[in-house]
Formats: sequence, C-alpha cells, structure tokens
Amino acid sequence: MTAEQLHVELGRRYHFSASHRLHNPQLSGEENCRIYGKCNNPHGHGHNYAVEVRLSGKIDPATGMISNLADLDSFVNEKVIEPFDHRSLNEEVPAFRNAVPTTEILCIEIFRRLKSFPYAKLEAVRVQETTNNSFEFAGE
Amino acid sequence: MTAEQLHVELGRRYHFSASHRLHNPQLSGEENCRIYGKCNNPHGHGHNYAVEVRLSGKIDPATGMISNLADLDSFVNEKVIEPFDHRSLNEEVPAFRNAVPTTEILCIEIFRRLKSFPYAKLEAVRVQETTNNSFEFAGE
Amino acid sequence: MTAEQLHVELGRRYHFSASHRLHNPQLSGEENCRIYGKCNNPHGHGHNYAVEVRLSGKIDPATGMISNLADLDSFVNEKVIEPFDHRSLNEEVPAFRNAVPTTEILCIEIFRRLKSFPYAKLEAVRVQETTNNSFEFAGE
Amino acid sequence: MTAEQLHVELGRRYHFSASHRLHNPQLSGEENCRIYGKCNNPHGHGHNYAVEVRLSGKIDPATGMISNLADLDSFVNEKVIEPFDHRSLNEEVPAFRNAVPTTEILCIEIFRRLKSFPYAKLEAVRVQETTNNSFEFAGE
Amino acid sequence: MTAEQLHVELGRRYHFSASHRLHNPQLSGEENCRIYGKCNNPHGHGHNYAVEVRLSGKIDPATGMISNLADLDSFVNEKVIEPFDHRSLNEEVPAFRNAVPTTEILCIEIFRRLKSFPYAKLEAVRVQETTNNSFEFAGE
Amino acid sequence: MTAEQLHVELGRRYHFSASHRLHNPQLSGEENCRIYGKCNNPHGHGHNYAVEVRLSGKIDPATGMISNLADLDSFVNEKVIEPFDHRSLNEEVPAFRNAVPTTEILCIEIFRRLKSFPYAKLEAVRVQETTNNSFEFAGE
Repeated sequence: MTAEQLHVELGRRYHFSASHRLHNPQLSGEENCRIYGKCNNPHGHGHNYAVEVRLSGKIDPATGMISNLADLDSFVNEKVIEPFDHRSLNEEVPAFRNAVPTTEILCIEIFRRLKSFPYAKLEAVRVQETTNNSFEFAGE
Repeated sequence: MTAEQLHVELGRRYHFSASHRLHNPQLSGEENCRIYGKCNNPHGHGHNYAVEVRLSGKIDPATGMISNLADLDSFVNEKVIEPFDHRSLNEEVPAFRNAVPTTEILCIEIFRRLKSFPYAKLEAVRVQETTNNSFEFAGE
Repeated sequence: MTAEQLHVELGRRYHFSASHRLHNPQLSGEENCRIYGKCNNPHGHGHNYAVEVRLSGKIDPATGMISNLADLDSFVNEKVIEPFDHRSLNEEVPAFRNAVPTTEILCIEIFRRLKSFPYAKLEAVRVQETTNNSFEFAGE
Repeated sequence: MTAEQLHVELGRRYHFSASHRLHNPQLSGEENCRIYGKCNNPHGHGHNYAVEVRLSGKIDPATGMISNLADLDSFVNEKVIEPFDHRSLNEEVPAFRNAVPTTEILCIEIFRRLKSFPYAKLEAVRVQETTNNSFEFAGE
Repeated sequence: MTAEQLHVELGRRYHFSASHRLHNPQLSGEENCRIYGKCNNPHGHGHNYAVEVRLSGKIDPATGMISNLADLDSFVNEKVIEPFDHRSLNEEVPAFRNAVPTTEILCIEIFRRLKSFPYAKLEAVRVQETTNNSFEFAGE
Repeated sequence: MTAEQLHVELGRRYHFSASHRLHNPQLSGEENCRIYGKCNNPHGHGHNYAVEVRLSGKIDPATGMISNLADLDSFVNEKVIEPFDHRSLNEEVPAFRNAVPTTEILCIEIFRRLKSFPYAKLEAVRVQETTNNSFEFAGE
C-alpha cells in the first residue's frame, strides 16, 4: 500500500489561561463546599489549560499531509482559544451559564466546538488542567 | 444528548520513589546478569516512578464530575502510594516475594490494587520508570 | 574541607492556581487596555503558578542537610500556598488591594513572605506564570 | 490469571535530530509556498524528533518482561536512529527520494522499519516534531 | 522600599527550528570529522532550539511591570525568530558565513542582536539545543 | 571583540538511577525517624537523579566550541555515571561509607569528582532528586 492510502493520527497542543469557579446553585453552600472543596471559593481561581486535539485522516497524495496545520490552527483559535483565553469560563462562555465549568464539561464543550473541522476527523480532545490532571472526551 | 449522559475519561498522575533489584533466583547468576544487566546489581537501585491512572465514567448531573478527585486520591494513596513510596519493592511489597519486580509486573500489581475503585471504571494503569520508559496494563 | 562546612543551595518547587486581573484604576480604560491587553479583561483569568524557592546554608553535620524539607514545606504552605491557592489574587490577597497583581509584584510579595524562614537563607524566588514566562526576585 | 499470561504494552522514547525541506517538485513554486509556508524554505531547516515506539506482548515467565529493552534499543538504533540521526531526510534517507518528508510519512516509514521486531508486536509509532506537534501511525 | 524601586529579572522562552552543519573549511576533512563527529555530516541536520532571554529592570510604578511582554516579543521576533526560524544557519544567517554555527557562537550572536532592547537590560541568553544541552552567554 | 575571546557557559544534563537510605548511626532510631521520616525506612528506596554540570571557558577559535562534548561525556561517565548508576549509594560508593547520602552531600561528591575536567572550568553541579527538588554546589 502506498503511504497516501494510510490513516495517520495527528495530535496538536494548544494553550489558554482562564478562571473558573465550581459551584452548583441548586445545591446548598455546605454541599458545594463538601463536593468542590477550595474550587468552590467564591472569588474563583484559574488555570493554564493545555488542550490536545487529536484528528485522523488519509494522507493527501499531493501534500503528504492529512491536514494543513495552518488551517487547523486558525479553526481552533477561532472556535476555542479566542473565546476562552484570558476569560472567566463562568461569566464569559455561554455553555457554562447553566453548567458547572468542571474540566469534564469543558472537554465536551471543546469537542463540540471542534468536531466540524472540515479537513480531518476529530478523534478526541484531551484537556490538561494541571500537571497531574487530564480529561479526555472521544465523542458522543 | 446532555453532557450528563456522556462518558469522559479522567487521567491522574501520582508519584512514588522506591528501590528494586531484578533477580530471578531460579536462574543462574550468569543468566541473571545477561538478562537484567546492571538492574541485577546485588545492592539494588531505585527510581522515581510516575503512575498514570485512567478511569472512565458518566458525568454525575449534580456535580458535573465523573468522580471526586479527593476520593480517588485517598483510594490511590491507601492502596499504592503509602505501601510503595520510599520502600524496597523486593523486600516490602508482598506481591514481589515470588515475582521479579519488573515494571511490567509492577504495572499489573497496581492495576489489581486499584480496580475496585467504586466511583469510576479503571481503564488502564501506566507506569513510567524513567523519562524514556513506560508500561501500560489495561486489565485481564 | 569537610562537606559540613560547605554552602549548598537548595531549590524547591511549589504550585498554586489562582485568578487575577491586571488593571490600574488610576489609568483610563483605554490605557489599561493598551498596556495589559487581554490580561485586562474585566472578569479576570487565571494561571497555574509554579514557585521555585532557592535557599542556601551550611550543611548540618548531624543530618547532612542544610534544612529539613518538612520544615520548609510547612513554612511555604502557611505563608504562600494556603493564602494564594484557589484564590483571586486581586480580591483575597491584601498586598494586591493597592497594587496590580503582575507576576513581578507577586514574586516580590512571595519573597517578602518567605525571607524570615529560620533555617536557611532565602536567596531568590522565581515565579513561573506559564511555560514560557518567569520572574525572579533576589531581595531588596 | 497469573501475571505471565497477561498482555502489557511497553512504550519507549528515542531521539534524533535531522533536517528536512517540504517541497513537492510536481507542484509550482507558488503552490509549494502556499502549502508548506516557511517549511518550504529552499535551504531546509531541522528538528529534534522524539519517537515513541509502543509494543505489546505477553510477559515471559522466566524474566517478568515482555521484551529485553537492550534488544529493542539495538534494533531501533540500527533501523532508525543510525540512518536518520544528524542526517538530511531529503538527501540521505532513500524513502524520501520520491516522497515529501512530512512527519506523517516519516511516521509511516519508521513503523515499516520497526514492524519486524521479533520479540513483541509493534502497536504504534508516534513521532513528535516539536513540543506541540505529534503524529501517530498504528499500521496498515 | 516600595516594590516600584526594586529590580526583578524576567525570563522568557522563544522557539525556532533550523538546520546547521559544523564544518571548518580551514581544517582537513579528517580533522572536521574527528572534532565534530556526526555534526559534520555534509548534508547538515537540524534542531528545535529554545532560547531563554533574561532581562532585568526596575518595576514601572504605573504598570507594575519591568517591560511590556508584547514589546519584548516583537523585538525578539524581528531580530531573531524571523531571520532564524526554518532557516539554514550556515546559508542564511550572515554571521555564520565565516563562523562555524556551534551553539556557543549562536548564543553570542543572539545576545548581540538583543542587547539593544530599549526597555530592560539584557542579562543573559541561554540557548538549549537538545533536552540535555544548553549554552549561556552573559555579555562581553 | 571576536567571539573567540568570549566566555560562554555550557550546561549538560546526565541521568542515573540509584538507591539510598538516610540514616545516621550516631543518632538514635527515634531521632533518625524524626529527621529523615520515610527516607529512613530500613530497606532503602531510590530515585532517578538528574545531574546538570555547568562549565565555562573561552571559545576555541579552531572549533567554535569551549569543549568537545564527547570529551565531557566520557569524563562524566567514567567519574560519576558508571560508579553511581544502578547502585546503592550507601553500599557501593566509598564517599558514603561515613556520610549520610543526602542529595546535598551527593552534590558535593559529584563536584569533587568532576572539578579536574581538563578542558573547561567546572562552575557548578546541580542534582535534581525529584521533579520538585534540586541541590546546587558551586565549589569550596
């Protein structure tokens, strides 16, 4: 088989910094405190989030690539980095108006924003919140 | 589909430092030396082990999380970090009384100790022995 | 010279996550925007901060150490990690009531909080705000 | 089940530095420039490539290992590191005489060179070109 | 002393990828081979270079910063990243017409290009060629 | 000034894995336990140590280098890596017969073994014991 007919997976990392507060208004203050601990502090806190986007596709015989990284970068920047970077997730991202901005739900939200990328198939989104913590969503 | 019905995978890293010696008493000294090289040195040596635990689960609609990290941390600390950290694997971990403490077998041992975690499904355990080396076990 | 009379420098890293907003109320909105760019976004944003504390001292002949790390850890946790972690620097750290919480000033504030450590001499504090960014203060 | 009957996956990282130029002689200069951007610069450029090789196998009951790392190292060094390290991929690796040395195709080429490793099954090859970029091929 | 009168050091990392070949035309082929080893391969090779720029200055009382990072970024991009990234150092950087592009000399060249930065004092330039290798120059 | 008359500092990282136990036989069991905590566990434990060696020198006008890395590598391997790697520091390194193998004293021992390197001046040795911990010695 020639290389052009083969599937390859591409992973690319992006970074943004944002603040959030974990708080469910339907629960009592005590319950919020028990569940979220210091993540429930009323003034919020923040993280440097790293997002790894994984896509798969066939190699284009003309270019030797599955997708032009410049296309991917501008898509991810428009859909995720611009609206999330240096923002409060609770206050400035509509998806978190009615959802607690845990990294689980952030990961799903990023997947949904990226799955229409036209030049390769989105396989998974992995969000790293701290050095020791990550969440991955591979589609619904 | 609402986020609450979706599966997400959580990865969390833990660290411990331990010593070990690779030696199979059923083999000759020469064979041990040929197979394990300097890992067979009689006084043992040690590593900083990093353990990545991967679990999957549905998002709890009340919390937006698949599992409380505080619960996971106390479970992993009790089952793995406390009994392994700053220990000699050969001398102080019963599973290695009759098994060579290679990282392959260490990885399986950690998986077995963690698979009863009650709040999410253990998917895999990955143990990194050095910067360039890792082993992963996804269940039997 | 025996090892016990020699000076050694110890570096130890700590981590906290916090939110901040760069805004000087004595400047106009336009000036704030020009100077701080997206760091001036009104709802704030956040970071995972890494703090490297560097101390020097003579080796204690009884222990072979310049300072017990357990002592250093509890000092740094009390003075810096507890009051800063999962907080809003602007709202919850008194030093930033009248100062813009740039990483430069954060670095000086951490140095001032740590310089009374009794068992070794504080040489410098380095704060890393993102993977590519760090600030270091070595005393006044 | 005893540990010896279980499958474990081993990951090991290798490193080489090489230069390449992305250029398809069947396309016009303008098209090459549009597709490859600065990667098309005529004098080439270079990278530190990291290669993660993932293999799976049953644990050998005599050794507790799925494969001797010394065997894997000498195989990978002979097949990949020696012929690629400190080389021009375009000029010195025959596979790139008629193929653009994108990381996608490099990844496939490395997989093909390693799939005959006799002591464990090659599962995937992942090539990291820069800190933010990686490509993975899992076989044809 | 108020924070505004204090000196702080800022470190910022930049990245570029380039190819080079170590070869001194005044030496014989044998001597070049003995001195530079595989770095003397005729077709060149390449690296991902990381450049850490360290600058010091007093904190500006109006901004709380020693220098606007946006100013530093555009200065470094113009002086170093644009002319070096995705280039052949030997062929495309005039300073290496008559000098072997070792990382030592690259480090000095980058320092010279950056020392006129108007808003803070350049203290040192550190160039990391691979994970294990770095060179630092602190001025002449 | 030409580049050849300038001083540059070279940093190079090496790695070894070893076991140790912190225990001072002149102190009581209780005191050892209080001072060293779990580092006093009787069977020892281990680490992956990273050693950063920093040297300075003038650039050799013939080579453009301050020292040939191949010379440095073979010197460090002979003096430090071979005798320490995959060893018990307490049992197999003579310097620790009568000294507690803390990282402070390990750092001094490595400096003493490397200071006679003939081709550049040893400036400092930094030993990283874990991701968060390092010790540096710059000479007596």
